[in-house]
Amino acid sequence: MIAVLKNPSTLSAFLYPKTIAVIGASSAPRKAGGRRWLSIIGQGFTGTIVPVNSRATELGEFKTVKSVQDIKGGADLAVVMVPTPAVLDVVRDCIEGGVRGIVMVSAGFGETGEEGQRAEAEMVAMCRAAGTRLLGPNSAGVFSAAGNVNTVGWKIPSGRIAVVTQSGNMAGTFTHYARAKSAGFSSLIAVGNSADIKLSELVEMLLEDQQTNAILVYCEGFAPGDGRALVNVMRSANRCLPVILLKPGVSEAGKQAAKSHTGSLAGEDAVVSAALAEAGILRASEAEEAFDLAVALSACPPMRGNRIVVLSDGGGHATIVSDCAGHNGLTLAELSGDTKKQLSEILPDRSGIENPVDFAGLAESNPDCTAKVLNICLRDENVDGVIFAGHFGGYHLMTDDPATQESIAKFESDAASEIARSAAELKKPVILHSDHGEKPLHTLDPIRKANIPLYSGLEAGAKAMAALRRWNAIEQSRGKSSDKPATYAVSERAIGLSTHVLTEVDARKRLSAFSVDVPEFQVVQSASEAIAAFRSFGRPVAMKLMSTKLVHKSDSGGVLLNLGSESQIESSWASLEKLSRTLGDGETQILITPMIASGIECIIGAKYDAQFGPLVLFGAGGVLVELTKDSAISLAPITTERAHEAIEKSMAGKLLRGFRGSAPIPTEPLAKLLVAVSNFIANQPDVIEVDLNPVIVNAAGAHIADARLVVT
Amino acid sequence: MIAVLKNPSTLSAFLYPKTIAVIGASSAPRKAGGRRWLSIIGQGFTGTIVPVNSRATELGEFKTVKSVQDIKGGADLAVVMVPTPAVLDVVRDCIEGGVRGIVMVSAGFGETGEEGQRAEAEMVAMCRAAGTRLLGPNSAGVFSAAGNVNTVGWKIPSGRIAVVTQSGNMAGTFTHYARAKSAGFSSLIAVGNSADIKLSELVEMLLEDQQTNAILVYCEGFAPGDGRALVNVMRSANRCLPVILLKPGVSEAGKQAAKSHTGSLAGEDAVVSAALAEAGILRASEAEEAFDLAVALSACPPMRGNRIVVLSDGGGHATIVSDCAGHNGLTLAELSGDTKKQLSEILPDRSGIENPVDFAGLAESNPDCTAKVLNICLRDENVDGVIFAGHFGGYHLMTDDPATQESIAKFESDAASEIARSAAELKKPVILHSDHGEKPLHTLDPIRKANIPLYSGLEAGAKAMAALRRWNAIEQSRGKSSDKPATYAVSERAIGLSTHVLTEVDARKRLSAFSVDVPEFQVVQSASEAIAAFRSFGRPVAMKLMSTKLVHKSDSGGVLLNLGSESQIESSWASLEKLSRTLGDGETQILITPMIASGIECIIGAKYDAQFGPLVLFGAGGVLVELTKDSAISLAPITTERAHEAIEKSMAGKLLRGFRGSAPIPTEPLAKLLVAVSNFIANQPDVIEVDLNPVIVNAAGAHIADARLVVT
Repeated sequence: MIAVLKNPSTLSAFLYPKTIAVIGASSAPRKAGGRRWLSIIGQGFTGTIVPVNSRATELGEFKTVKSVQDIKGGADLAVVMVPTPAVLDVVRDCIEGGVRGIVMVSAGFGETGEEGQRAEAEMVAMCRAAGTRLLGPNSAGVFSAAGNVNTVGWKIPSGRIAVVTQSGNMAGTFTHYARAKSAGFSSLIAVGNSADIKLSELVEMLLEDQQTNAILVYCEGFAPGDGRALVNVMRSANRCLPVILLKPGVSEAGKQAAKSHTGSLAGEDAVVSAALAEAGILRASEAEEAFDLAVALSACPPMRGNRIVVLSDGGGHATIVSDCAGHNGLTLAELSGDTKKQLSEILPDRSGIENPVDFAGLAESNPDCTAKVLNICLRDENVDGVIFAGHFGGYHLMTDDPATQESIAKFESDAASEIARSAAELKKPVILHSDHGEKPLHTLDPIRKANIPLYSGLEAGAKAMAALRRWNAIEQSRGKSSDKPATYAVSERAIGLSTHVLTEVDARKRLSAFSVDVPEFQVVQSASEAIAAFRSFGRPVAMKLMSTKLVHKSDSGGVLLNLGSESQIESSWASLEKLSRTLGDGETQILITPMIASGIECIIGAKYDAQFGPLVLFGAGGVLVELTKDSAISLAPITTERAHEAIEKSMAGKLLRGFRGSAPIPTEPLAKLLVAVSNFIANQPDVIEVDLNPVIVNAAGAHIADARLVVT
Repeated sequence: MIAVLKNPSTLSAFLYPKTIAVIGASSAPRKAGGRRWLSIIGQGFTGTIVPVNSRATELGEFKTVKSVQDIKGGADLAVVMVPTPAVLDVVRDCIEGGVRGIVMVSAGFGETGEEGQRAEAEMVAMCRAAGTRLLGPNSAGVFSAAGNVNTVGWKIPSGRIAVVTQSGNMAGTFTHYARAKSAGFSSLIAVGNSADIKLSELVEMLLEDQQTNAILVYCEGFAPGDGRALVNVMRSANRCLPVILLKPGVSEAGKQAAKSHTGSLAGEDAVVSAALAEAGILRASEAEEAFDLAVALSACPPMRGNRIVVLSDGGGHATIVSDCAGHNGLTLAELSGDTKKQLSEILPDRSGIENPVDFAGLAESNPDCTAKVLNICLRDENVDGVIFAGHFGGYHLMTDDPATQESIAKFESDAASEIARSAAELKKPVILHSDHGEKPLHTLDPIRKANIPLYSGLEAGAKAMAALRRWNAIEQSRGKSSDKPATYAVSERAIGLSTHVLTEVDARKRLSAFSVDVPEFQVVQSASEAIAAFRSFGRPVAMKLMSTKLVHKSDSGGVLLNLGSESQIESSWASLEKLSRTLGDGETQILITPMIASGIECIIGAKYDAQFGPLVLFGAGGVLVELTKDSAISLAPITTERAHEAIEKSMAGKLLRGFRGSAPIPTEPLAKLLVAVSNFIANQPDVIEVDLNPVIVNAAGAHIADARLVVT
């Protein structure tokens, strides 16, 4: 069963509670419970904090109560850190006491095995019956800057990034990054086991949170269907924010034996990437990168094009930054003549006045030139954003002479203020790299105060700028297309249960019953029926033995092609019947169908994915499918527009457009078939996998030459 | 012209000089010349430092001389920082004064245009005539820890990594990394314009330097032929060290219009990657990653297998590290029963006793368990190395209580010492990640003192461990194969000059003259000659118009295939002759050759690369070459072993092995052809590019169906 957010305001109890009941707090600072208690009372919470304890009467300066039900006026949020065996009673007490949200720090449930799973399910059932929402169990806690809530156990800097994390220690790592990079969080929510509240619900809530400018998610795997729920949230949100998701790929994925091409192509990680791209979520590949992107996306104005200027203190930095930017889809802006003229009045001849703009040593002794040059570049209409890489903020450290240090530092501070002013005035993204970026230098304070991203990693600025551009493109395209995909309401399928493969005849029947175009065919049970069918088709045919005992029909001689005479039909019948008897089929069933004229071989697949629901896959077929794994995965159902996109970007699309002088083949019938298959998988709850391979596309249309369905 | 290192000891003047002449030093600390002077005199140089100045008589406490020739006993190293116009005179003075090495900091030469290039060439010619070696011009200087030399202008920590860099500000960035990560350099050499001394020579010298354990190179592009020279150095070195190379790819590479498939496939960056891999050089993709790899490779014992244990403070870190390790070729070790038993006596039940090993909160209050667990894992025979990720060193910071902090910190220090002891005793690589890794915490001192790599980036440890494994594999395979490639002595080809494409007839003649097997063919100039040729072959033929005016023969009707009768020959002659007249050829020349039986289409290409010399390329041909860009690039000449490797790993290799039930095709003739083409490109100085596409491989052999040569 999938949680549905009936009343979003319930979740607000987690970020903006009025009274917090703390159950199981410890006064020992060495213990996690003690650290959490200290962070709760140290965050400046303006409501009431009530420790609940059946034995002690006070905790520090706080009077305890014996039960949540004893709290006058009740508590909307409860933080539970009691030993596992005591948890269910405490949950009951919370429900009786009218608590709306429970942060369950206690662990020992779903993550420990069957018994724990049962207890977890009971706990969730109790909460749902009462309308109480549960975060966790095994949650590392909640931080809310505006709500002055901190149950995490350590100090957390405030800012504009919201974090949702499945891992407590990644909450710690993100906090370290925030401190080192002078960034901060509007909220930080550790979902633990996600037994009740799911990732998608938290993102939905945070998209509405006015304190939040960007959402950073650490996710190792979605609860069943919750990946799709997240896609739906992103697609339907009124206010859409940049969401950056860090999800480790699964490098052992290869282990899973691929049941079919579709199965092996749509490996989990490729599905995640495709689904997130469709949702307009930015996926980061490393932890620090994820954080760095969130910093830029939470702070910068829109990046309206992909033309950047790179300013630098020298060639190496400029080359690395430009190259990384180029690999991520940005280009170096062509500076206008006017810009070049202005720059030439400031910069020495040796700098060359080109993009990248090289200060060539000038900035080290005259830091004021940096702000001037940046302003000139930012004003250029050909420029969408500026990355400045080098030692800014630390020029004064290049000398040991105190007087010189002081005077250069003053110039640097002033330049930093000017840079901040230019960025604010001209509303284009400015990103700084400095080797000194993570040092607490006062020269960099104006940059930090202005929330200009400041990185010490050389490539970080280029990646962040590219992410700004991608996000702007996502925002621009949101809702632009009139051809919107039908929303797929998330529901769970029993994919864990035993599945079986339909015979091709049954597969063809199922497909055509759901208006998927299947080439004409007949099922025959004798040589004479076969000959009659051949006569009725009036052209060469293929004959295929239908046997549930044959995994690969063609490898075992179960498929005979290009049969053009009655004698061939007769002898083919005989050989297939012999094979059927060898296999031990009860009754020989043969599918007979006209040969399809040659064309481009494609594959259309579909599967039901536990995290993202129904998917459809398109790629080049034949030899290419095994050699190249060329494929485009889309969430099903898809629109005609998306179907054409998928065809377009695949190798098959290249072949269909007319490769090496051959005539182009119309792709409309293929797109129509792809849409039909996507509707099929989305609407047939017992279908787990569809494998149409090959689909032969020629001037006459797109023809399914082989069909395979896996159903529960 | 390529520099050849005649006397390696000359280069030692740069790292271990006896007397340093400093020409153009300034006393102003704000100026670069002043900073360099301060670093020279501040490094504790035990020889003599003599400032040279024609006007002042002293610089600080140092007496100046007017000319290098005035230095008593002479100077072996000169550092030159005079204005550009004064440089040539100073160089003359140095040569007269018997200087062996010049560090030319002064800029304004090759990087500025033609005039600068001329002056640079003159300077180099003077030096070479005198046997004086020149570093730069435009060099950021030299640092030598053991030689107590520092002309770079800032303090540099000492250690075991040698840096060679084409960029001065990357020298700065690497220094920042070294400070933050408590690492250091044996030497740091900024090559500037590489007018005389080339990268490859410095690497050759450093491979012999006993102070150096690993070499970190920042390179934007090799001087002509110097990429190949570096490969030769690596292949022939007596003592081989890990070399980590950071070279920004060229994201605009696509701009270069590809003249042929070979040209477009062997794009510069792919060539660099292939050549470095052949040389056993590790290529890093980002700046900090390059440094982090150098840290591990300069400090760790050999990683003898790919089985690691990941220790962590919690799931998120463990997942990210394991996943990154998996993507980089490492696997999680299967812990022995005995190891598990020992671990279960230390770890709480909730940790699960699996690999990754999760401390599950225990380490935070009892840090001593970390060292015990690490020792147990390291002793396991199934384990080749351990990565420990989390908050180690900063557990004590999780509480604000001073007494608790102190007691936990003591446990942490002790554990750190134990970890260092285990790593030293058991001689397996141990790598730490800590969120606190770049903080100056005393709890981490024993780790740093033991040179155990300590990273604050989560993925850094996994990448470094994978690099240790790769390096060990390279070391193991060095010199193992009896089938060594012939050394290609670097020489420059005039690829900048105008080139032209040979007709296929001329191409075939050139190839077969150099014992490259070419299918039989005849050149005919009339219909009757064509018919005679057809008769002599006695089977269907192809006819191709030879015209220098046809770029793509087949697109323009210049190739007619499968001609099996005399009347077809006659009409084909007529149509090709007509085409020839339309094109304005003087005389119609037609190549006639028997049709090749069908087979697997491959491409063999070869080209002369400015940086790496002759290369040979193999890949799948036909449709696949354009769709997939499948190709393996090798340095030419190649061995038969390497040819088989290249075939093996390509898609064509998959097809040749017998794809989808078809019979496998012997690859020996193909490998022989590949070796022959590689010898051809290596030994024909006027050949710039070879494009054999397709080469049809069938049971009868490997047959060149089309040949194209570009020559100067």
